[in-house]
Amino acid sequence: MKRYLQLAAQFEKMIANGTFEPGMRLPSVRQASSSYRVSASTVFHAYYMLERRGLIVAKPRSGFFVTRRPALTRSVTIASTRNVDDAEGDSRVVRFMQAQRRCAHPGLGASEPSAQLFPFGRLSRSWTSATRRMGLSWNGLSAGKAETDLRRQIALRYIATGVAVPIDEVVVTSGALDALTLCLQVLTRPGDTIAIERPAFHAVQGAVRRLHLRTVEIPVDPHHGLDLVALADALQQHPVRACWFVTTLHHPTGATLSDQRKEALVVLLAKHGVPLIEDDVFRELHFGASPARPAKRFDSNGLVLHCGSFSKTLAPGLRVGWVAAGRFASRIEHARWMAMSSACVPAQYAIADYLEHGDYDRGLRKLRRDLALLQAQTIQAVLRYFPEGTSVVRPPGGFFLWVELPDGVDAMHLFEIAEANDIAIAPGAIFSSGSEFRHHVRLNYGRPWTQDVERELHTLGKLARRLAAERVAVNDSREGPEHMTGEEP
Amino acid sequence: MKRYLQLAAQFEKMIANGTFEPGMRLPSVRQASSSYRVSASTVFHAYYMLERRGLIVAKPRSGFFVTRRPALTRSVTIASTRNVDDAEGDSRVVRFMQAQRRCAHPGLGASEPSAQLFPFGRLSRSWTSATRRMGLSWNGLSAGKAETDLRRQIALRYIATGVAVPIDEVVVTSGALDALTLCLQVLTRPGDTIAIERPAFHAVQGAVRRLHLRTVEIPVDPHHGLDLVALADALQQHPVRACWFVTTLHHPTGATLSDQRKEALVVLLAKHGVPLIEDDVFRELHFGASPARPAKRFDSNGLVLHCGSFSKTLAPGLRVGWVAAGRFASRIEHARWMAMSSACVPAQYAIADYLEHGDYDRGLRKLRRDLALLQAQTIQAVLRYFPEGTSVVRPPGGFFLWVELPDGVDAMHLFEIAEANDIAIAPGAIFSSGSEFRHHVRLNYGRPWTQDVERELHTLGKLARRLAAERVAVNDSREGPEHMTGEEP
Repeated sequence: MKRYLQLAAQFEKMIANGTFEPGMRLPSVRQASSSYRVSASTVFHAYYMLERRGLIVAKPRSGFFVTRRPALTRSVTIASTRNVDDAEGDSRVVRFMQAQRRCAHPGLGASEPSAQLFPFGRLSRSWTSATRRMGLSWNGLSAGKAETDLRRQIALRYIATGVAVPIDEVVVTSGALDALTLCLQVLTRPGDTIAIERPAFHAVQGAVRRLHLRTVEIPVDPHHGLDLVALADALQQHPVRACWFVTTLHHPTGATLSDQRKEALVVLLAKHGVPLIEDDVFRELHFGASPARPAKRFDSNGLVLHCGSFSKTLAPGLRVGWVAAGRFASRIEHARWMAMSSACVPAQYAIADYLEHGDYDRGLRKLRRDLALLQAQTIQAVLRYFPEGTSVVRPPGGFFLWVELPDGVDAMHLFEIAEANDIAIAPGAIFSSGSEFRHHVRLNYGRPWTQDVERELHTLGKLARRLAAERVAVNDSREGPEHMTGEEP
Repeated sequence: MKRYLQLAAQFEKMIANGTFEPGMRLPSVRQASSSYRVSASTVFHAYYMLERRGLIVAKPRSGFFVTRRPALTRSVTIASTRNVDDAEGDSRVVRFMQAQRRCAHPGLGASEPSAQLFPFGRLSRSWTSATRRMGLSWNGLSAGKAETDLRRQIALRYIATGVAVPIDEVVVTSGALDALTLCLQVLTRPGDTIAIERPAFHAVQGAVRRLHLRTVEIPVDPHHGLDLVALADALQQHPVRACWFVTTLHHPTGATLSDQRKEALVVLLAKHGVPLIEDDVFRELHFGASPARPAKRFDSNGLVLHCGSFSKTLAPGLRVGWVAAGRFASRIEHARWMAMSSACVPAQYAIADYLEHGDYDRGLRKLRRDLALLQAQTIQAVLRYFPEGTSVVRPPGGFFLWVELPDGVDAMHLFEIAEANDIAIAPGAIFSSGSEFRHHVRLNYGRPWTQDVERELHTLGKLARRLAAERVAVNDSREGPEHMTGEEP
């Protein structure tokens, strides 16, 4: 680990454990440089990092002052490496999927944006034209042709992100999860440890379980994203074979790593020789003025396997994804051959055609504008209808809100009574193998705003308020003098 | 194991090791019944089984006589349980796949029939109509609708095979290999042992390796199919967790288990409580007058997970398969949810539409007629062009010939020089993790007969004849008196 990262970690710990309390001044750069036998520039880098995280502030001519304890104090510690073979976690996800299928209103809980937001008309034209063009050739033998077209279009799109990806590095898969799983299969064996995020999309836990891996969970802060200090510790303490991280618009929190943090992540992992499986299916939905860049942009060692998909940006049902697999490309390609897996051939033709002729970028701009508006409307509704104490971080893109309910409101309980009201939501508990995120829910706002949507949010908020009120009532009676209860007949 | 199977196995061993030589009479039914303390009917069953396998013959009023040693004496023994982590096997498959992509003439080596044999026009209509009908709904949320349509059509098709499969038992997957792998993932953990066939489709070895399983390989005879006696032994000697067998038109040999043997297989496995993953993607291509039935037909314990696909019978590129998973259906469905995997949604709609309106059965009848003719033409060409000593078993369906070259001809060598001549074939070595089948090649005859096809077979035969001649020359010089070579200057 770079020296300045180590130093930042040391100071963070001292702030976390109260050695430096909020308001206290940190050692001057000169003092620290002398005490820790590092250059002044290293100290400066470390302080700069702490400042960017909001833990300290520079006051002109006075020095650096602690502003707050790390927000994540309770979860900065690294989850113990565990063998994820957790029937309870599985059963929560199964219950969630069942609710998704049973409920008349599954939209708030859905894992994908509604197809109504996508450029369906133009995609249909590509579909028809591709079907006509491929003629008799839509079988496995011609998958080569469809795949080559699509690989080329994908490689061309990388140029805009500042990453040079040769066409040979792109392996087309049956959706992003197929790509991500293929990467894990090539990089690990059963019993190996990988680093994942906490919280993480439940499919991460699913893949980890199927491949019989162990995990170290690195906390994600909704504001700043992955905790690099915790990751640095984990890399020193555990034999991490690979990392699987969502670097932009993390699922479910929506957090995005800044360019600087992405670079620091790549540098840190390169130092340990650990490959990064970069799960980057949401990046194109980033609302920022300039497009977010993948961590792969900063990789000069071929250690980043960058996975993408068209399921969140064009057509969820087509199941076409890819990985730009760096130095692992040929191993990944061979593993795919051994698995004899390939994506639906006409779908590959159709997407290749759309990328070439369909003005994907204009479609994405419209999609982002729509999503930004929908996000604002949904946040407004949540603040209006949900109980006091509910907190929502405004994510810089995507189609999910990660909503924290007041302490008294159990999200699994809300999930259950919502299901009884025919509304399916995604409770926080499905995003962790442990018992965290009991007060969180993930809400999908990626569908046209209608009275029905507002009514669902209204109902859900009412149910959450009722749970909050019940909890307060329970607390009140508990807090009341004991003899009053005891004296009742 | 049923008593008559044990008895048959005992007699088979005695015939194999020469206790009973060809021409000798077996004990009379009464003698055997008394010696082995079993009923006369058990002896009769056992003898009947040996007779069906061609090992003995009944002569009226004389008794049962040995006709020949078991053809498989050399391979009846069970392959030692091995952890399939065989880089060499992998590299052979990779070389094969590379040749498939590089060569101008990959047809003889292809794993699928040519799309030209399929009812493309009618399928295109289903495709267009499905695309129109699904409108905006081709995303993940509506996968439920496409899937329900397709599950219903699949369940309806089972009726003709005499198997009652409720719609809930059908899980739709992204191709048959996805289904087969899902079954393995649910039924096993790394390090477990499963029984597979020898030879077996190379994707079997691939899946086994990815899931870190151990295997017991059960020999397959091109005439009679899976060796049930060897399987019975294996079940007693190894902790077999599941079996993965192609029961009809085995790949690559083309062998089909008779109904009686399928029933015996199901009974044997039920006795041990071992699930059968029935890989049944070729059955609809059986040429026989009456349709072949799946082993699942004989299952009353829900232990058979029956996997199918449309890749060999309708459209290889669509990647849609399924499993009728018996008592494991809900576990399989949940595993698929955890993996968040699904087949391409428009492809599901299109196939459901085709099954409902497209007269699949008429298409299959035409496909079988075409394939039967192509098989005859190809066998004729092989017999004409290939070296003396080449043997071909006429498979009762499908689109593969499993050709055994004369002893002197190494199939990997033939593969290499064929590749140099721009012709890709599938050498026998890719169908086993060991070093068997060095003299076999798999030839695909599933494409329209043209002068080009005949020319490829001509060229391949010429190359094989050259190898055979070289080998004879080498043997001749080796067999010459030593001093002649030694005395040369």
